[in-house]
Parts: sequence; C-alpha cells; structure tokens
Amino acid sequence: MLAEIITIGDEILIGQVVDTNSAWMASKLNDAGIRVKQITSVSDERTHILEALAAGCERADVLLITGGLGPTKDDITKKTLAEYFGVGFKSDEATLEQVRKIFARNNRPLLEVNIRQADVPENCTVLLNKNGTAPGMWFEYNGKIIISMPGVPFEMMYLVEEEVIPRLKVRFELSSIVHHTMLTAGVGESFLAEEIADIEDSLPAHIKLAYLPKLGQVRLRLSGYGESRDELTREIGVFSTRIRERVGDFVVTDEDKPLEKALLDLMESKRLTLSVAESCTGGYLSHLITQHPGCSSVFVGGTVTYSNQLKQSVLGVLPETLAEKGAVSQETVTEMAEGARKNFGSDFAVAISGVAGPDGGTPQKPVGTVWVAVAGKNETVTKLFKFGNRRAQNIERAAVNAIILLLARVKGLA
Amino acid sequence: MLAEIITIGDEILIGQVVDTNSAWMASKLNDAGIRVKQITSVSDERTHILEALAAGCERADVLLITGGLGPTKDDITKKTLAEYFGVGFKSDEATLEQVRKIFARNNRPLLEVNIRQADVPENCTVLLNKNGTAPGMWFEYNGKIIISMPGVPFEMMYLVEEEVIPRLKVRFELSSIVHHTMLTAGVGESFLAEEIADIEDSLPAHIKLAYLPKLGQVRLRLSGYGESRDELTREIGVFSTRIRERVGDFVVTDEDKPLEKALLDLMESKRLTLSVAESCTGGYLSHLITQHPGCSSVFVGGTVTYSNQLKQSVLGVLPETLAEKGAVSQETVTEMAEGARKNFGSDFAVAISGVAGPDGGTPQKPVGTVWVAVAGKNETVTKLFKFGNRRAQNIERAAVNAIILLLARVKGLA
Repeated sequence: MLAEIITIGDEILIGQVVDTNSAWMASKLNDAGIRVKQITSVSDERTHILEALAAGCERADVLLITGGLGPTKDDITKKTLAEYFGVGFKSDEATLEQVRKIFARNNRPLLEVNIRQADVPENCTVLLNKNGTAPGMWFEYNGKIIISMPGVPFEMMYLVEEEVIPRLKVRFELSSIVHHTMLTAGVGESFLAEEIADIEDSLPAHIKLAYLPKLGQVRLRLSGYGESRDELTREIGVFSTRIRERVGDFVVTDEDKPLEKALLDLMESKRLTLSVAESCTGGYLSHLITQHPGCSSVFVGGTVTYSNQLKQSVLGVLPETLAEKGAVSQETVTEMAEGARKNFGSDFAVAISGVAGPDGGTPQKPVGTVWVAVAGKNETVTKLFKFGNRRAQNIERAAVNAIILLLARVKGLA
Repeated sequence: MLAEIITIGDEILIGQVVDTNSAWMASKLNDAGIRVKQITSVSDERTHILEALAAGCERADVLLITGGLGPTKDDITKKTLAEYFGVGFKSDEATLEQVRKIFARNNRPLLEVNIRQADVPENCTVLLNKNGTAPGMWFEYNGKIIISMPGVPFEMMYLVEEEVIPRLKVRFELSSIVHHTMLTAGVGESFLAEEIADIEDSLPAHIKLAYLPKLGQVRLRLSGYGESRDELTREIGVFSTRIRERVGDFVVTDEDKPLEKALLDLMESKRLTLSVAESCTGGYLSHLITQHPGCSSVFVGGTVTYSNQLKQSVLGVLPETLAEKGAVSQETVTEMAEGARKNFGSDFAVAISGVAGPDGGTPQKPVGTVWVAVAGKNETVTKLFKFGNRRAQNIERAAVNAIILLLARVKGLA
C-alpha cells in the first residue's frame, strides 16, 4: 500500500517556513507499515492543487494533505477538494460545537468565518479535530482515500495518531517495514562503505543499506520490506551484527536516536551526572540535552556565560586568564569546565568557548575557532576546532563535537 | 521564470530527516526574483527520479535537485541523470583535484569510490564544490536547465549562493517578487482577518495577503509579483501602512524576523540588557536568542537550573520557597528571575519554571503547567500558562510566551 503526502501553502514555496509536518507523518506511516512514495509541496492555487491531487491519485492509494484549511481567504483547500469531487457543502455539527467551545474558552467573539469552519464537502467523513477549529476530512473517491488536515503541527499530529493511522489499519492489510539504524561518529562514509562493501553486496533485494552523513556522524540504516515483521527483524539482525563486528569501534549506538540521547543513555546507565558551561553555543548544547524526557537523572544544569563577568562570577574563571589568554582559549575553557563541575556538583562538565561569528574574529582566532573542554574527576581533556564562517553551523558543530568528545571519555570508563 | 526543487533520498520519505534544504533554496530563489512552483521529494529509485525529472521539466524552466551524490552505492542521482540525458561519463579534473586536496587535508586514504566522485555526465558543466567532494552539476537539455547538488546543507548553500543564483541571473531576465511581512503576537488570525477584511478585498490581483499562524503569533505577509521592484515596494507599502494603522497594537515588528530577534532589536535600541534563568525550557530560550549575530550587546548570559540545588546556589532561590511552594510556582519563578537579574547584572531577567513532561506532572501541577517571570528594575511580572502534553511543544510555547511577556514590558517603557 502506497501513500503520498501533499503540503499546501505558499509559505513553503517561498521558503518562509520549513515543512516539518511531512517528515513527522512519513515516520508515523512507516511505523504502521505504509510506504510514502512522494512528498509534494504546492502553492495555494486552485489549478495547482487540482493537478497535484490528480497526479497523486495516479501513483498512490492514499493521499495525506495538510494546509490551507484556515478561516482566512488565502485558505482554499476545502473549496478545491469539493470542486475535485464535484460536490457541494454541508455543515458538520460536531465541528461547529467544537468551534463554539474553543471560542468560548478563549473568550473570543465567534465570527461568521469561524462558523464556516464547520462546513465540509458533502462526501466527507469528518475526523474531529480536538486541538483546533479546522476539521480533519476523510474522502473516498474512485477507489482512493484522500485525507485533508490542518497544517498546524499539533492539530495534524493529533489527527494522524488518533484518527488517520487507526482507520488505515482497519482498511488495509498492511505489510511490514523494518528499519534498523546504527549511529557512527568520527569516521567518513566512504571509509565505512569500503570496510563493509562485501556485506552490502551480500544483501538480498528486499533489504537496502543507506548512509546518512551529518556533521561528524554517519548513520547506517538497513531497511527491509516484506510480509513478516519478525522475519525481517531476524534477517536485518544478521546483517547488522556483521556490520557491527566489522566497524563496531565507530558505532555510538545501535538504535535510531540522536547523538546526545545516546550520551544521556550511556551516562544514565553508568549513573553519571553532567553539567554544561556554554559560551558561543549559547544554550544550544543544554537544549539538545534537555529536549529529551528523563534527562534530569543525568543533567544537573548549565550556564550560558556570554559575558566575561559571568565566566568569573558563575564559573570562577580567573580574571588573569581572561586578560592574558582571552575568552576563547584552552586555559579559559578548562577553567570553565572545571568551575562548572565544581560549582554545579556533577561528575562531568563540558565547556565550549569560541567565535561563532559573523563578528568577533581576529587573525589569531578567526570566526570558527572553538575550544571544547571535558572535565572529569581526574583530568580535563581539551580540543581545538576550526570550523567555517556560518554562525548556525558553528554552533551546531561545536555542540556535536563536544558531545563526541564527552562520549569518548564516558565510553572509556570501566 | 519558474523553478522547481526536487530532493532525492529515502531518508526524507521515511521521515528520518526533515528537508530543510528546500525552504532555504526557495527563499534564496525568491530573493532573486525566481518563483518556485513545486517542491518534490522522491526516493533513491531510478524510475521515480526519471519520472520526477520529466514531470518537473513539463512545469518549470529550471530544476534544482539535491541529494544522492555521495560516494556510496545508495546514491544514484548522477547515474540516473546520465541515463535521462542519454550520455556517458567524463572525469572532471578540477573536481578530482578538490577531492585529493580534501582527503590529504583530513589525512584519510583516497579510495577508488572517492576518485569516482569526479566522474560527471558528458553534457555537464561542473560547479566546483569548495566545501565537499561531490561536484555541483549544471545541465541544459531541451531548453530547460537542470542543476544537481549534494544534499549536505552547507555544500548545497555554497553552490546556490556562489554558482547557481549568479548564473541564473546572467541567463534570465528575472522579474521581481517583493514580500513584506508583519509579525503580530497575542491575537488570532480570524480576528485579524475580520479587522482588515476591506483592505484585503481592495488588493489588486498581483498582490496577495497570507496569514501564517504559529504558537501565539500570526505573520501577515503581503506578496507582490511584477516587473518593477520599486513599483511593487511602493504599492505594498501603501497596503501595509493601512494594515498597520488598523491593527498596529498587535504588530511586534514590520520586518520578517523571528519574535526573539524583534525583542533583541528593541532592547538594543533602548540599550537594555537581558539575562535568562531556565528550568523546563532547558536552554532553549537562551539558544533562540543567541542564534542571532550581535546578540551579545543585549544578552549577558543565562543559566539552566535543572536541579533545585542550582536554583539555590546560582540564583539564590530560598530553600523554604522550594520546600513550601515547589520548583514550579509563582514564588520560585519570581525568585529565579530576580536572582538572575541581580547575580548576572542585567536590566531585565526572564525566568521559566514548569513541567515539560511527559513525566513530573501532579494533579495540582499537571504536565504543561508553566510559570514565567519577568524581573525589571521596579517590579516583577509573572504569568501562569497551562499548555498540553507534548514536551517539545511545551518547551517551545513556554519560550515564545516568555518573549511575548518581556516584549510587552519593554515596549511599555518610554
């Protein structure tokens, strides 16, 4: 069974927003055994939407559409769907009640356009949107299923999880898709590929291997497509074990989780705690860690000491160090890490100090210069990085490399 | 002139990565006066790529393709392009030299697959990729231009900015696209739409108004399409002034910038400094602020006091307050904000304490309960929020609402 995703909205096509909905939906559909054939983003234009619907129905059994369901005039998805099906509109009572409830709860006046939110094409089965005023809509047309949802992420998420996936499971005999991902750090993809070339060549046609490189990391993903989930899992297990035997030194985790989550899990298993002192990464490393539920068993806290004054008062960096060596130096980052470890009372502390850019660079310390320190009980390890000119990327790379450095330390512990 | 974007890679269609490349490219193309008609994501499958190429060439003048250019076997874009054009391969010397240089610099052995990176279809004009080993490729075929780039964001970005856009500008007489965006906070989109309905109705056909809602914010975007940039700018200026006169109370900024950047700019213009004390948002608010260049003139620093102990030692929250009222309370968040303001020496301090979830909720303080405090010279303002169950969303909403609360305070200052 094949699905396609269509996202509607000029804001995507002019690059004003990043389409995060599609990846989320694709991942949920995969979990349910549904392959996504294509993702298409089109503008809020009647003819373009009609073309995308027709093309999607040619290729797939199910279309999931998001966007264009708001109460304002630029939202035309509902009208265009009715035109595509050649039907008129009806008012849906459950939706109307939901709209009234939301406006009453927020003490906002109910306008005519809000009442119109409850109008749906006549051939529609309403999927009640408990998180908003625009209803989800399920259509069956010429043997295909077409589902329209609002583009607001948490409204779409509710509908996919609570309505769409359960209904698709009832409707179709779904086959199985099994992914197994290994995260490696500190090694290039072509090196990995060379090391495991014979294993890759021996894969059967229904199992694919993909390499996903990303800032110092490469994820190796085995994907199997077939009838039996158990059989696929067993087969993929055989190949992943062979790969692990070959390049296991570089494997950080055998699950599809982000690097910082692998670190958190490892530290938790060893009952170690962590604090963080950030300068140029400005809270990004703390954010990476604290986005994960349960992080508080490892993460004690952190500080963003942007100013030199805070580096002294919060972390105890010596004024002489700052004056003589500068904020971006091996000495300062060492004192930051050791100060965090001591003041915050954690087993390990990571400190990052660098020039994220675009300003602040000097000939000696150009933009992209970053020092990382990891302080533990017995020693503090430091490392100097020379990244490029882009601020966002320097922040990301500094945080990722700090995690890799800490991971190596923690892995090394008995 | 119309462009389309095609991103190639199974990782997108199984939801393993979010396609951020497309929005970035679309935004750059728009700036250059090039409209993006459609964005399409397809799998690493020969037939599917061939279909997408043919369909894209039907609709657009220029195709920008990313992905599938790595050295490993799952990358088949180059081979498939050669098949589409019906040509063989040639080795590109400049690329080969670039590949050798990169491997020498990183002290990695040059493998056969790496040398093959320099092979390109015979009809290709190479766009030298100074940030990586996979070359950008420019093709002209049946009156259309097809450009293939690596999917690694900073490699693609380099090629788009340095090669693709300049070459397209030489090639085409580009028309103009002008966008003007106003950011509003604290008001719903249907209310805004009702207030400015007559202005919207009076827009000429070549100017469109869009409403982009997002967590307590609505962006109003006027987009004009035409020949003369000056004339479009003037026309849009007339309508944006009328909108501002009508709903100006809710307008945070008249530029297309994120909420926290509007805050930074406002505080900078008033020469005010800021510090941040975060608990449940775990560094996210600091990260939002510090991702912007030049933030250090406003942002002094912050702390992520995840543990109660750090709330006491870093911020001076009283043990009694924590014991009697709990970490998530009006009293604690007030002491956190006032402690940050004092200890970090800033004009304003924002503190956030809440239950992000999924664990940690109680009947009295369920997941989603968040207190925000803004401490200034003369008073501390607090606000209680009751969000939902999703951790990522609670973190985001808490940070956004803290910014809105602080913005209102700062705006109110003479």
